[in-house]
Amino acid sequence: IEKIAVAWEPNKPLVIEEIEVAPPQANEIRIKMVATGVCHTDLYHLFEGMHEGGFPVVLGHEGAGIVESVVFAGKCRFCKNPKSNHCEKGWIADRQGEMSPAESRFTCKGKKLLQFVGTSTFSEYTVVNQMAVAKIDPAAPLDKVCLLGCGICTGFGAAVNVAQVEPGSTCAVFGLGAVGLAAVMGCHFAGAKKIIAVDINPEKFEMAKVFGATDFVNPKDRSKPISEVIAEMTNGGVDFSLECVGSVGVMRSALESCVKGWGVSVIVGWTDLCDFAARPIQLIAGRTWKGALFGGFKSRDGVPQMVQSYMDKKVKLDEFITHNMPLAQVNDAIELMKNGKWYIYILYVYIIEDLQTELYKDKH
Amino acid sequence: IEKIAVAWEPNKPLVIEEIEVAPPQANEIRIKMVATGVCHTDLYHLFEGMHEGGFPVVLGHEGAGIVESVVFAGKCRFCKNPKSNHCEKGWIADRQGEMSPAESRFTCKGKKLLQFVGTSTFSEYTVVNQMAVAKIDPAAPLDKVCLLGCGICTGFGAAVNVAQVEPGSTCAVFGLGAVGLAAVMGCHFAGAKKIIAVDINPEKFEMAKVFGATDFVNPKDRSKPISEVIAEMTNGGVDFSLECVGSVGVMRSALESCVKGWGVSVIVGWTDLCDFAARPIQLIAGRTWKGALFGGFKSRDGVPQMVQSYMDKKVKLDEFITHNMPLAQVNDAIELMKNGKWYIYILYVYIIEDLQTELYKDKH
Repeated sequence: IEKIAVAWEPNKPLVIEEIEVAPPQANEIRIKMVATGVCHTDLYHLFEGMHEGGFPVVLGHEGAGIVESVVFAGKCRFCKNPKSNHCEKGWIADRQGEMSPAESRFTCKGKKLLQFVGTSTFSEYTVVNQMAVAKIDPAAPLDKVCLLGCGICTGFGAAVNVAQVEPGSTCAVFGLGAVGLAAVMGCHFAGAKKIIAVDINPEKFEMAKVFGATDFVNPKDRSKPISEVIAEMTNGGVDFSLECVGSVGVMRSALESCVKGWGVSVIVGWTDLCDFAARPIQLIAGRTWKGALFGGFKSRDGVPQMVQSYMDKKVKLDEFITHNMPLAQVNDAIELMKNGKWYIYILYVYIIEDLQTELYKDKH
Repeated sequence: IEKIAVAWEPNKPLVIEEIEVAPPQANEIRIKMVATGVCHTDLYHLFEGMHEGGFPVVLGHEGAGIVESVVFAGKCRFCKNPKSNHCEKGWIADRQGEMSPAESRFTCKGKKLLQFVGTSTFSEYTVVNQMAVAKIDPAAPLDKVCLLGCGICTGFGAAVNVAQVEPGSTCAVFGLGAVGLAAVMGCHFAGAKKIIAVDINPEKFEMAKVFGATDFVNPKDRSKPISEVIAEMTNGGVDFSLECVGSVGVMRSALESCVKGWGVSVIVGWTDLCDFAARPIQLIAGRTWKGALFGGFKSRDGVPQMVQSYMDKKVKLDEFITHNMPLAQVNDAIELMKNGKWYIYILYVYIIEDLQTELYKDKH
């Protein structure tokens, strides 16, 4: 018998249910969850995505826990290609922009529950395919490094791996939620000399400074388009821009904020509700528009490396955490995130189930 | 006294006028035109762009001629950056997608004529800024290498410099006008193993084969979206796609035809009438959307190199030429191009003014 948080239907609070989890099958692993972040992608599925057939589901995908073994997967053509962090067997179906709901080992009240992003970490135990797991330093504090399961790697990697920010360059980061702050941290890590943090909530600027931002723009204070403001601040535009909002309007603005000739803009924020757009000349003038999942990290190698960077104090994590809560309060966590929301991403709310915390303390 | 072809207003035939050209000023060069191509960009300005204030103008920008001297420009930050082929003093104003009409040294009937793309080659003599000139091998046949002034470099370079097509890769080229055929040639030059040529006019396929295309798709023969057809032909999509049409719908299709994870799509065709668009997941899934002017070549170095490649028989040019005509028949050339048009680009029509041809024969 274990507890999980079930999203029975869109737009409703999650329900803590007691269920039995079926044992793992071939290539699957049973994990005792210790800690999980709440990411806006969870909320997106619950409140915005509204995928038909996407419910009932167990949300949560940013978890750290204890597993017995990791079986390495045979490598597909994507896994073998250093340019990509995709996997042929992966969870993303890109045709309709829809995350493919996967089969889970959860059954509740006679109904099969769907798995979310291949993980479903709002649970005491989860069963995942072995490819969804990365083995990390056993000394790492799981109630911190769980954040490397999604948001922080997504933002940091977008700057370092995808944009490939260069020393001495100029950058602009749109949206200062956890992903945006991690992108700021990535730009700083890569040696950018000017990092312009853009958000309509000026309270975020102080935190952005902690992560390395040097300049701050609040679109609400400006009458001009932000791309013009940034062009004036940077002699024509930044070398790199990162959209960490998930708004197609901001995506356009981020592209237009890049310098012609070599500017690179990376779409990091998630939305699949409408198209992004720009005038062809914006690309023909020499700009590049990219995007990535999970910051371009191949997770099995990338997550342990990022854990190591955290242990070596090269990457910050503690600063992202605003609350710690037990699983039973998952709906409070979701409300906190919803109410604090501006653009799309907000700081992470953090959940630790009491029992699991104790186990974790025993272990470490 | 010299002859030039004046576009007095949009949508009207050009008028051959006799004028005097003012002498060059500082940093300018007077050129005796020997040969020029007709590029669809000329027609775009005349029939589609309709820029207010863009007339009267002397069209033509794909010329080869004889100059007395080349003064090298001081290098700006764009010229110095190997990532870009832009110049701070260049002719492109990217804010509105509008080519900035430059001052010319042409006056006709008391009216100042505008210069087109910094060149205005539909003329016996033209005066251009020294930065618009590249010095080439004097042994090169000007009635062939003039095509390297725009279209052929644009398509070839889009594959080789911008997409950076790799040996053994799969490619798709949308639109088989001169630019598209040059892109096919670029993919072949770079060692692509599969080059899918896409056009709604199947008569183009034979020519595409000459330039290296291996597979052919006519969207009119297919009921599915072309991106699905190409995905089936290539196990999920091509590594590189090139849009050589100038249609925002085809731009989207070209992006969607790329494999997720590492696919690169390059916008080569020109239009500024509407936005291009796609779902964010198309980029977030790991694709890159790029564009370039003039195939990413820095013209002063790139054109002489391409001329050399032609002389060394590594690059074809003769196959692009369908007609030779004197300047007096410029309107016939434009009609041929208009009527032969599908998608946007068509094969180049070629103009040689009689007198100039004779001069050219004297010289070589």
